[in-house]
Amino acid sequence: MLKVGLLGAGRIGHVHARAISAHPGSALVAVSDAITENAEKLAAEYGIAARSSDEIIADADIDAVLIATSTDTHSDLIEASTAAGKPVLCEKPVDLSLERAVACQAAVHKAGKPVMIGFNRRFDPNFGAMKAALDAGEIGKPELLSITSFDPAPPPVSYIKVSGGLFRDMMIHDFDMANFMMGGAPDTVTAVGRSIVDPEIGAAGDVDTAVVTLTYADGRLAVIKNSRRAVYGYDQRVELLGSDGLLQAQNMLENTVVKSTAAGVTGAKPTYFFLERYMPAYTAEWDAFVSAVTNEAAMPVSLGDGVDALRMAEAATRSAKDGMPVRLADVG
Amino acid sequence: MLKVGLLGAGRIGHVHARAISAHPGSALVAVSDAITENAEKLAAEYGIAARSSDEIIADADIDAVLIATSTDTHSDLIEASTAAGKPVLCEKPVDLSLERAVACQAAVHKAGKPVMIGFNRRFDPNFGAMKAALDAGEIGKPELLSITSFDPAPPPVSYIKVSGGLFRDMMIHDFDMANFMMGGAPDTVTAVGRSIVDPEIGAAGDVDTAVVTLTYADGRLAVIKNSRRAVYGYDQRVELLGSDGLLQAQNMLENTVVKSTAAGVTGAKPTYFFLERYMPAYTAEWDAFVSAVTNEAAMPVSLGDGVDALRMAEAATRSAKDGMPVRLADVG
Amino acid sequence: MLKVGLLGAGRIGHVHARAISAHPGSALVAVSDAITENAEKLAAEYGIAARSSDEIIADADIDAVLIATSTDTHSDLIEASTAAGKPVLCEKPVDLSLERAVACQAAVHKAGKPVMIGFNRRFDPNFGAMKAALDAGEIGKPELLSITSFDPAPPPVSYIKVSGGLFRDMMIHDFDMANFMMGGAPDTVTAVGRSIVDPEIGAAGDVDTAVVTLTYADGRLAVIKNSRRAVYGYDQRVELLGSDGLLQAQNMLENTVVKSTAAGVTGAKPTYFFLERYMPAYTAEWDAFVSAVTNEAAMPVSLGDGVDALRMAEAATRSAKDGMPVRLADVG
Amino acid sequence: MLKVGLLGAGRIGHVHARAISAHPGSALVAVSDAITENAEKLAAEYGIAARSSDEIIADADIDAVLIATSTDTHSDLIEASTAAGKPVLCEKPVDLSLERAVACQAAVHKAGKPVMIGFNRRFDPNFGAMKAALDAGEIGKPELLSITSFDPAPPPVSYIKVSGGLFRDMMIHDFDMANFMMGGAPDTVTAVGRSIVDPEIGAAGDVDTAVVTLTYADGRLAVIKNSRRAVYGYDQRVELLGSDGLLQAQNMLENTVVKSTAAGVTGAKPTYFFLERYMPAYTAEWDAFVSAVTNEAAMPVSLGDGVDALRMAEAATRSAKDGMPVRLADVG
Repeated sequence: MLKVGLLGAGRIGHVHARAISAHPGSALVAVSDAITENAEKLAAEYGIAARSSDEIIADADIDAVLIATSTDTHSDLIEASTAAGKPVLCEKPVDLSLERAVACQAAVHKAGKPVMIGFNRRFDPNFGAMKAALDAGEIGKPELLSITSFDPAPPPVSYIKVSGGLFRDMMIHDFDMANFMMGGAPDTVTAVGRSIVDPEIGAAGDVDTAVVTLTYADGRLAVIKNSRRAVYGYDQRVELLGSDGLLQAQNMLENTVVKSTAAGVTGAKPTYFFLERYMPAYTAEWDAFVSAVTNEAAMPVSLGDGVDALRMAEAATRSAKDGMPVRLADVG
Repeated sequence: MLKVGLLGAGRIGHVHARAISAHPGSALVAVSDAITENAEKLAAEYGIAARSSDEIIADADIDAVLIATSTDTHSDLIEASTAAGKPVLCEKPVDLSLERAVACQAAVHKAGKPVMIGFNRRFDPNFGAMKAALDAGEIGKPELLSITSFDPAPPPVSYIKVSGGLFRDMMIHDFDMANFMMGGAPDTVTAVGRSIVDPEIGAAGDVDTAVVTLTYADGRLAVIKNSRRAVYGYDQRVELLGSDGLLQAQNMLENTVVKSTAAGVTGAKPTYFFLERYMPAYTAEWDAFVSAVTNEAAMPVSLGDGVDALRMAEAATRSAKDGMPVRLADVG
Repeated sequence: MLKVGLLGAGRIGHVHARAISAHPGSALVAVSDAITENAEKLAAEYGIAARSSDEIIADADIDAVLIATSTDTHSDLIEASTAAGKPVLCEKPVDLSLERAVACQAAVHKAGKPVMIGFNRRFDPNFGAMKAALDAGEIGKPELLSITSFDPAPPPVSYIKVSGGLFRDMMIHDFDMANFMMGGAPDTVTAVGRSIVDPEIGAAGDVDTAVVTLTYADGRLAVIKNSRRAVYGYDQRVELLGSDGLLQAQNMLENTVVKSTAAGVTGAKPTYFFLERYMPAYTAEWDAFVSAVTNEAAMPVSLGDGVDALRMAEAATRSAKDGMPVRLADVG
Repeated sequence: MLKVGLLGAGRIGHVHARAISAHPGSALVAVSDAITENAEKLAAEYGIAARSSDEIIADADIDAVLIATSTDTHSDLIEASTAAGKPVLCEKPVDLSLERAVACQAAVHKAGKPVMIGFNRRFDPNFGAMKAALDAGEIGKPELLSITSFDPAPPPVSYIKVSGGLFRDMMIHDFDMANFMMGGAPDTVTAVGRSIVDPEIGAAGDVDTAVVTLTYADGRLAVIKNSRRAVYGYDQRVELLGSDGLLQAQNMLENTVVKSTAAGVTGAKPTYFFLERYMPAYTAEWDAFVSAVTNEAAMPVSLGDGVDALRMAEAATRSAKDGMPVRLADVG
């Protein structure tokens, strides 16, 4: 039984608390949060202790740490936790600064403890089935990947300002999805981004709509589309053209009811947002972490994967600003 | 080049006129109608002669006759045309009276000229592809057939009164579809019918909503659902469960556009009615007739098929009235 | 916190144990089973006591009972539990004998304790959304209901022999679904059933494929199709034609992946069987029970609903045998 | 009755011959082809004269000209025809040389006769319905357009060599589709292209897989994906995200049959290629031309539209070579 300390008791912390608790191989034993009240509330729910991060990391009786704090604390907490001998599952992104993330990677390497980055979408059963079909050769050699990833509504501008920007905050999931499907990072990143959904996002120095093209050394291509607003719900589709066919992972829908009237044939909308859509993925993600720790196996998503995605986000941010393709090798 | 006389210049006569004209192997040379003005109008459109039915049937220079007149004239015209040595394509149903249809069948047998009944749906590319998959063994042995067949709106009550009732006028298409898919007629027919769409239809002695169950000697079952009103359009679906799977022919849609908004995900309605849905079928039907006549091959839908469907309609009418299953062998 | 005793530790008992346990308002405190070993195994999993049914029912400290034993014990256990003052959730069907079920209903009435019958499908989110749309008037007045309900594979013939037959064992779910959607029981039941999937089922005196037509006093119609075998998975579809449109609840699929190759465009199969398809329904069902007990509200599915469905099963069994429509008023 | 001369009797010439012939307002009166035999064969089929292009253009009795010859002759034939006072429908592209196309535009302006460019996809009923919904404001303000356009199989390399390259030969249709949906041309074009489908295409100096991003002055974005090979058929999808929703025009399928077996749920493939998919569009295109000529109305697709698309193709060709965004204003 893996005894787990949870750092961060916000919305996503609650999601993880449930997964840790429900898993037969792990137990939630402590929680911390920058806002003590939040930690206490979650602790009460699970009948566990609210403590400080430092205490949790230092506690020899805690086997592993899940980091779900604000992004600016990720690298420090990863380093402290691994230095204390604890395997870590950390929410994405590793850091907003690529430099800092790379330094963290070096520190972790030295500590010799495994770190998994929480790219939950890799554990979605639909994307998993698509990847399995790809790996089984069902569409031959992959050639052209497309990722459509629209949020239902933009976050508050206050959040946008500290988010690191769309490429680091939102598209980073899609960069990792591309790396997952394509089996590694691309050569170059070409990005265009605009603020067309909400001018306040543009005023805050960010974009809300973006298209990024990736090129790979062997000629493959990928394109990622992001929008901060799709009023019909969370639009999460991936498709991949190969030499022998096309694979598509389509949206999950709220239900299977279809209504035909004089006005048309209407079905349900996509599940609203990440909590609804990716709940099974969070469960599977946690299971994968527990399994890797228990079996001393390689992490299914490594810290290196987190750094790769961050490097792509950095490249895209530059490309969108300069209007030029950016080679990944020239970043960081 | 098959020179064709068209009897009947109503709505369906116009559809056939176009098909005859467009076919490289046939030419429309004459048209008749009970209302001379209708015949003259169609004749003018095609630059041909408007004549009487008798003249057309008697004209040695006319090779074949297409009968698209009112149902009560079908048997007489089939007999006269075949007696005059002409192959015939006649609209469904053969007759409203099973007795008369059987007599017609005898007369045609004596005349020795081929007669095809216009069950257009057999020539729909979708049902054709379904039948081909079935015959290729793709779902193994058929077990349970379901036909959903709803009109977009009921006809005028004045038409209902002379139509012979829902089973002879509307469901006859579905009886033939069942025979087409199942490869022959069933043993028994059990029908329930109600007037729930429009009480005036009930007052006219007919039903507007019906469910008919068919049983076959070898244990197979079929069910047909009819409604005179589906406000979303012409609902024409067939599905067949077999030992190795299910085949479904779904509706044709007006277009492929899908709109996702806060209100849901909305696609196009089914094509409105038979003219839109079955236009390619009418063309293919005519081609099949021309091909059978030209090659002196068996008709793809025989007069016997028409009589079979009529016998099932007769059985269903009785069953719906008496509330008892009716054996086909006991009818007519 | 509702303290719950579970009677029956078979496959469905395990499903219920999980739901009881996971619910914040209930706790699983004891379990019994005819096979003591089964009860002990489940008890060990949940850290609770394995006891006899009698002990559980007699225990004043247990607030409610969930009956998931074999069908022939349902009535006795319902009576004993309610006599002991305990609200009951009992798996369907109430009994194989309509007479016994009616007697049970009388005993329960006397005991004055609420009994809910576990028609899980009423709690499926898809059927729930369909019913909500219907009740909101989105398709106007209902006219013609169709239920397609195919199991992926037949149960062992040994089970068939004690099952009460397809109508009582399998279609009873669909009878209840019809009553749920139509708001009450029909007037007449007309059934045809055949053994075509597996001759051994026929040899055991049962059918494996059936079509049942229901008529309602106000002219509405319904049709239910059952097959014991759909090799592509659990086919669970409901559709309802109304004066203003059509509602359909379609199948849940294993995933959203679609593969397009030279061989066609292939999507996932329906979720395999009831455990996969209706897992969320079992959770919602239990929640509804807890909520009704806690709030002393009416049960969302009453014992009377269970008797209604059983009466329809009885009528269908007779109709299939005699080949005649059966009036519900003449049954039981 | 518009008397029409057809220049070019190749595959697409035959498509147009049928449309001209079938239209009640036009008559095919003459045909020419660089290969006399081709012209004579088509002429024989329609019972018309095979003549030279010069003769057709000079014939005062011919009202309009349809140009379906090889691309390198388009500009000359447009100029000659309009100089001779004839309205013209010319197949895309106007020319492989933007410079030549612009000169042609000037000549046509001087001649004062209307020229329509055959961007057939604008007349596809699906894209038409999508555009109508957009113009009706059904998704609010457009923000992000995506066009997926894959051919089923690459053309022979011999054709590739004279085609002007993927951007001028294939994606030109998608550039026009973008202009159609977005209501005008973009500001900048950023293209990446690779030869990954067939190395011989790369050896011939062309690409077979490409992604192009378009930016618009007002912040809107568009992305176009092309591949020369989708083994499952002609993949032609357009989707547009707006402030109030998403519009998608999905593929036309070969039929509506769906087969569910143990292997999955399989539907039909997209219609194979442009002749199957866009046949109704060719008919509607011709009708639009006849109607514009007859009513002396503006052409629904102007020569200027053809030049715009060609300028985008030129920009994409440059961008794909240099790896830099290209401003349309800097091209030609």
